[in-house]
Amino acid sequence: MKNTQSIADETQSNESTPSLPDTVQLISSLSNISELTDVFLSTRQSSLTICQNLSAEDLQAQSMPDASPLKWHLAHTSWAFETFILKPHKNNYQVFDKDYEYLFNSYYNAVGQQFPRPQRGLLTRPDLSTIFQYRKYIDEQMLALLTSPNAHVINLTHQQLEQLVLLFINHEQQHQELMLTDLKHLLSINPTYPSVDYIETLTPSKNKQMLEIDAGLFSIGHNNETFYFDNEGPRHQFYVNAFRIATELVSNAEYLAFIEDNGYQTPDHWLSEAWQKINANNINHPLYWVKKENQWFEYTLSGLVPLNLHQPVKHISYFEANAFANWCDKRLPTEQEWEVAARNHGDQLQQLFNQLWQWTSSSYAAYPGFTPPPGAIGEYNGKFMVNQYVLRGGSIVTPAGHIRCSYRNFFYPDACWQYSGIRLAETI
Amino acid sequence: MKNTQSIADETQSNESTPSLPDTVQLISSLSNISELTDVFLSTRQSSLTICQNLSAEDLQAQSMPDASPLKWHLAHTSWAFETFILKPHKNNYQVFDKDYEYLFNSYYNAVGQQFPRPQRGLLTRPDLSTIFQYRKYIDEQMLALLTSPNAHVINLTHQQLEQLVLLFINHEQQHQELMLTDLKHLLSINPTYPSVDYIETLTPSKNKQMLEIDAGLFSIGHNNETFYFDNEGPRHQFYVNAFRIATELVSNAEYLAFIEDNGYQTPDHWLSEAWQKINANNINHPLYWVKKENQWFEYTLSGLVPLNLHQPVKHISYFEANAFANWCDKRLPTEQEWEVAARNHGDQLQQLFNQLWQWTSSSYAAYPGFTPPPGAIGEYNGKFMVNQYVLRGGSIVTPAGHIRCSYRNFFYPDACWQYSGIRLAETI
Amino acid sequence: MKNTQSIADETQSNESTPSLPDTVQLISSLSNISELTDVFLSTRQSSLTICQNLSAEDLQAQSMPDASPLKWHLAHTSWAFETFILKPHKNNYQVFDKDYEYLFNSYYNAVGQQFPRPQRGLLTRPDLSTIFQYRKYIDEQMLALLTSPNAHVINLTHQQLEQLVLLFINHEQQHQELMLTDLKHLLSINPTYPSVDYIETLTPSKNKQMLEIDAGLFSIGHNNETFYFDNEGPRHQFYVNAFRIATELVSNAEYLAFIEDNGYQTPDHWLSEAWQKINANNINHPLYWVKKENQWFEYTLSGLVPLNLHQPVKHISYFEANAFANWCDKRLPTEQEWEVAARNHGDQLQQLFNQLWQWTSSSYAAYPGFTPPPGAIGEYNGKFMVNQYVLRGGSIVTPAGHIRCSYRNFFYPDACWQYSGIRLAETI
Amino acid sequence: MKNTQSIADETQSNESTPSLPDTVQLISSLSNISELTDVFLSTRQSSLTICQNLSAEDLQAQSMPDASPLKWHLAHTSWAFETFILKPHKNNYQVFDKDYEYLFNSYYNAVGQQFPRPQRGLLTRPDLSTIFQYRKYIDEQMLALLTSPNAHVINLTHQQLEQLVLLFINHEQQHQELMLTDLKHLLSINPTYPSVDYIETLTPSKNKQMLEIDAGLFSIGHNNETFYFDNEGPRHQFYVNAFRIATELVSNAEYLAFIEDNGYQTPDHWLSEAWQKINANNINHPLYWVKKENQWFEYTLSGLVPLNLHQPVKHISYFEANAFANWCDKRLPTEQEWEVAARNHGDQLQQLFNQLWQWTSSSYAAYPGFTPPPGAIGEYNGKFMVNQYVLRGGSIVTPAGHIRCSYRNFFYPDACWQYSGIRLAETI
Repeated sequence: MKNTQSIADETQSNESTPSLPDTVQLISSLSNISELTDVFLSTRQSSLTICQNLSAEDLQAQSMPDASPLKWHLAHTSWAFETFILKPHKNNYQVFDKDYEYLFNSYYNAVGQQFPRPQRGLLTRPDLSTIFQYRKYIDEQMLALLTSPNAHVINLTHQQLEQLVLLFINHEQQHQELMLTDLKHLLSINPTYPSVDYIETLTPSKNKQMLEIDAGLFSIGHNNETFYFDNEGPRHQFYVNAFRIATELVSNAEYLAFIEDNGYQTPDHWLSEAWQKINANNINHPLYWVKKENQWFEYTLSGLVPLNLHQPVKHISYFEANAFANWCDKRLPTEQEWEVAARNHGDQLQQLFNQLWQWTSSSYAAYPGFTPPPGAIGEYNGKFMVNQYVLRGGSIVTPAGHIRCSYRNFFYPDACWQYSGIRLAETI
Repeated sequence: MKNTQSIADETQSNESTPSLPDTVQLISSLSNISELTDVFLSTRQSSLTICQNLSAEDLQAQSMPDASPLKWHLAHTSWAFETFILKPHKNNYQVFDKDYEYLFNSYYNAVGQQFPRPQRGLLTRPDLSTIFQYRKYIDEQMLALLTSPNAHVINLTHQQLEQLVLLFINHEQQHQELMLTDLKHLLSINPTYPSVDYIETLTPSKNKQMLEIDAGLFSIGHNNETFYFDNEGPRHQFYVNAFRIATELVSNAEYLAFIEDNGYQTPDHWLSEAWQKINANNINHPLYWVKKENQWFEYTLSGLVPLNLHQPVKHISYFEANAFANWCDKRLPTEQEWEVAARNHGDQLQQLFNQLWQWTSSSYAAYPGFTPPPGAIGEYNGKFMVNQYVLRGGSIVTPAGHIRCSYRNFFYPDACWQYSGIRLAETI
Repeated sequence: MKNTQSIADETQSNESTPSLPDTVQLISSLSNISELTDVFLSTRQSSLTICQNLSAEDLQAQSMPDASPLKWHLAHTSWAFETFILKPHKNNYQVFDKDYEYLFNSYYNAVGQQFPRPQRGLLTRPDLSTIFQYRKYIDEQMLALLTSPNAHVINLTHQQLEQLVLLFINHEQQHQELMLTDLKHLLSINPTYPSVDYIETLTPSKNKQMLEIDAGLFSIGHNNETFYFDNEGPRHQFYVNAFRIATELVSNAEYLAFIEDNGYQTPDHWLSEAWQKINANNINHPLYWVKKENQWFEYTLSGLVPLNLHQPVKHISYFEANAFANWCDKRLPTEQEWEVAARNHGDQLQQLFNQLWQWTSSSYAAYPGFTPPPGAIGEYNGKFMVNQYVLRGGSIVTPAGHIRCSYRNFFYPDACWQYSGIRLAETI
Repeated sequence: MKNTQSIADETQSNESTPSLPDTVQLISSLSNISELTDVFLSTRQSSLTICQNLSAEDLQAQSMPDASPLKWHLAHTSWAFETFILKPHKNNYQVFDKDYEYLFNSYYNAVGQQFPRPQRGLLTRPDLSTIFQYRKYIDEQMLALLTSPNAHVINLTHQQLEQLVLLFINHEQQHQELMLTDLKHLLSINPTYPSVDYIETLTPSKNKQMLEIDAGLFSIGHNNETFYFDNEGPRHQFYVNAFRIATELVSNAEYLAFIEDNGYQTPDHWLSEAWQKINANNINHPLYWVKKENQWFEYTLSGLVPLNLHQPVKHISYFEANAFANWCDKRLPTEQEWEVAARNHGDQLQQLFNQLWQWTSSSYAAYPGFTPPPGAIGEYNGKFMVNQYVLRGGSIVTPAGHIRCSYRNFFYPDACWQYSGIRLAETI
């Protein structure tokens, strides 16, 4: 990793060197271990900040198998530091509680069996105060490790340690986003529409254009200068045909026009599997939309609010994004098209980062030459590479500095509890 | 209702007048309204006592659709006083929160729609402290009503008021039992086997006999002297053929012999539907039994303890009780046989009341002449009279004074999270 | 078994000696083995007659797990003679095909494993012509046994042989009824409403009265004079309270009034479990009713015909029967009430036998003193005694001579593909 | 379409011009309409030939929702000619039976509603002989159209007619393959392992090499010279990195080694979703493998035969193919790699065509610039482009002449009832 904040490195023909939006501040390769320690501590604090005004009950409940209780997220992110750093690499480390190895393992078969995911909301013990103690204990142990590595670290170079710590800082940031989306889903089920005073404001869409981008052979994937997840590499050549991409995201107004044109009742627009799903589940509007007395509202983390037509439409599934695109004779971009556009024409595109995740038409798959690392860490990404679709760009609940051009998020095509929206594309 | 503690009233030929065990203290017709007020307050307090050492999270989680969160029980029992007494019958009553009508309605269609039962564990709002305030508010309002009825009661005689209050005191007692069985089920899912320091000790079985009882025409059903639920009447004549009934409950030792004789692997013993269920769900021992290193343990509210062979076997489904009875060439008693034996030969039978609910072979059905009362209260019992089986006698977690000879509990034949056991019978 | 065609035998106080309707011709204890042979042959022929105008495909398909293909019925009824009579009791018997032991075993665990019931429709081999050969082979072998028992029978007295043969003649008759109801269900799924030219005509209801019957102690169960299934005994005393019973079945006109009074939309009428089922499955009329251009039709074995308002309503589930009864402030009779009325007042009741099975409010359970015979035959009835409800009286597709006063049919409370109707009762 | 039998057309840098295996005889653009008529008639006859020794029952049953009854295939392929050619384009065409529009529509929403797919096996009417008449009628009508188009064709040029006929000839060929795979699945459920005397012999694998192929920019997709489906185009540029591809398919011996190395018990090899599926369904060997007395057998269309270790392993799901590849540190090829290798190095690769479909790692998606044609025919392929994976190469049950280099078959990743196998690849 090189010491630079820039993600633009391309030297190939069709790529300029755009400046990235200010909102994207990367946790990049850090100048020294004390800087890393600061980031560690502030990241750990951020998880607690999310829970600040929530009750123990809010942190306990699990609204669906795909979501987890916030208390579980608090424990699991600590478990990750304990399992992958402290246990194997801290001299004489004493585990906080040996049961946690099982209770808070998400999906690492190489670590051992896992408590069944759909039942995480039933783990009322350990209670919240014990989990807070657990976090404190892990923070202290990590601090000892980071502040006097020579005295404590075993079986690991300092550089390897830094890389591991950086990985699990990023891991905790991923869970911070999930904490907010899981919380929103949980509260949305409550018929009283609770508010946690988190205003969801996005940059409005106001003047959408289709930006033309020429064909060419491009480098795709991380550029090695900043932190990245294994699935973002290896960097490789990819030929992209000429295409156009929308400069803005699809707005609530545009999506409403689709609904009012019987979009959810017209099979032509929908993938066959999507058509079955929306009919089986009586879906005829985005997840959090609510119609009351002929007026559309939207459930948000600040409660039920009137639908703002200028805002980008959010909480859209891949199925819905694809149907909407068909309806207006466009399509979704591939993830390579998105990356080429963002990297080289980012200044002409609005709402690229930290607004809404943008569905691409790319099934989540290994890049050419990708091999997961050996051991448990190899389970981080690789084993999910089937039947999911890639989203790019990050959302308003993605932690600042967590996102970059090469970042690949992925969800099943019917998932819609993330802050996901639509950027259109078309073939020239 | 007459003022008497005795449940024995029969004057018919084949019935003696036995004295009932001391443990059965009935909430009977109370001498005056101040006595009723005391019972009201102590019953309300008992619900809180159950929650004493539990966390907000313990009270939030719901382990299965059949169970409810303890917080929900706390709210619903208050809702019942509010809905059936305060709202219609207290002058100028102001509801605590209008949303509760929907949130805490269990199954009363006549009151309105209900929040879906399987999602009760997702109602993190109102939080626990708000529910405690709700309970306090209801208690104060009820106290005002009871201490100066003339000033407050509308559309109701004092006697009707007393009957209604008595009904919902009994209703809250039923929920107290469910709070403990639902809690046990929830905690049992936690792989750390949490203890809440509640020791489950039953009278041991040590000298089981089969007591012979002659045929005859008996009066079945409540005797009108104490409080009773509508399903316990009307009292009616029933001809019972000669039979024998066990003086004690089946012990863990006896049940273990059934297991070791491949009871769960031998289809002959099982009802066809039971055989499908135990195979589909890999059931081969009672719900809370755990085998560790070839030794049997049992999960209890005081944690995991070695199986005590002399104790009655508990948490048995109807399917298991029936299979066990077949295995030893006996059968379960009908509910009429149970009632006749308990009423007339109770002193010769051990573990009759407040030990374990005892499955009978009787499908839960209306007694001859039964008609549910009109309105929402008519939904209390009648609409459940299909596909469930009657249990008699009460368990160690049934509130003292809640049980009587004519009491009919009922559950689906695969249910086993109640404290249910086996008393055998046979035809002569 | 005595040689008599009469099922009326009671000599007890409250019973008169009614004459039974002509339609009830019993296969009773037969005077000699040659008479039995005739009945055997004609019963076997009847199964073939049912299939007369059906294609191999009609006999192959299985419309739901509860139903079986007609080809399977043809094979299974032959399998029963082979398994329970020929194999154990015919000297040097050679099985037709050893695979059939597994393929055509319905549910007899004592015989061995069974081919999974929901997949019976996938057994395209053996094909129909092979099954016809199988039937011929079994008939020949049985004929040899019956015509010269001395030469062929082993391990069985002649009387035992006769009883076994009689049992499996009755078994085949039961399957003949199922063949017709399973066929109707299968064809009803075909959107072309096929006809097999079987006119379903019942005696119309025209002047329903409520007949009063006094309380008393009655003998319930078979009277030993004719063939009976084990579940019809032992005969025992039962006290019946005074009641009234309808002289006729509920008509389509009456049931239509229930529908038009929003019967299916009013939760008060329905058992809680029924309410869930009809809502989950969008049920709002009897199984085979079809509304076309605001007109009610009914699918029958002679195709789609306009609903005849005077005919008894048929294909009603227990849930529907119970809801209808609640709607008109009546109830269903218990099976004992039905039997007492039919036995003693049969001449005042219309449509008692061979019209429609009549739901009773009695859960299917063992009579006092009932024990299933040992071995596989003990699985015939006993293991189904849970969660099903008793029907009495027989239907138009019940073979002539198969029915009697003590006959107990039983189905799950949501079953409606049998010819089942409603006879009302009420408590005095 | 040009008049040529060759599929090799490339003129680009990295492509040689290989000769294709003899077995690949394409239904290409035909020289004249009489040639087309011959192909039409022989294709129609082939469907009947498949059914030659099967009973009406074999053609009726449907073993799972993904499969269809063979009778349904016979009808549906005729329905396709009727719906897309005869009805709109034959002057004064009289439909054979108006109900068929609904009964035999597979999934064309633009044509109208469809009879529910999982219930196709319940359509016993029309019976087999009627479907044979239907086929005859369609053949006669098509023949009239083809032999004197001037007299009969409306709203269509002759060239358009030829293209449509060619499309539905290919459509019928696709169904011929499904008839055999659906038949095998159906018969495999029968515990008697029926044979239809169809020997499944493949070219053995004996000397597998990894062939190295250089990186380059290649043309992917049909070359316009022969018939192709819309999903095979448009032809476009694709950059392929250097890779190696196996010259032979994975053999039963190799796959057995995977099994014996606990391949099905080791989570590391499996995608997360695959691991859940194989555990939930107790899968631990290929679909049709059977172990008897410690010996492996395989169910085939000629019955149960000992597993031949030299033959390629078949009936493998994508999940299994992927796990096997992981186990031996290889991977599956992308569909572009497969096409490049087949087109340019086909002579060095064994078992390319008409042996087994070969899973690729490519999720089934639109090629750049793909847009489905308008109307019902647009539903042929496009709406299935999600969550399925591409297979290439064709199988022994693919009709001769139906396959080509650019052909894209696709199935869900857990599907294994097709003749699907494994060709490995690796990154250099």
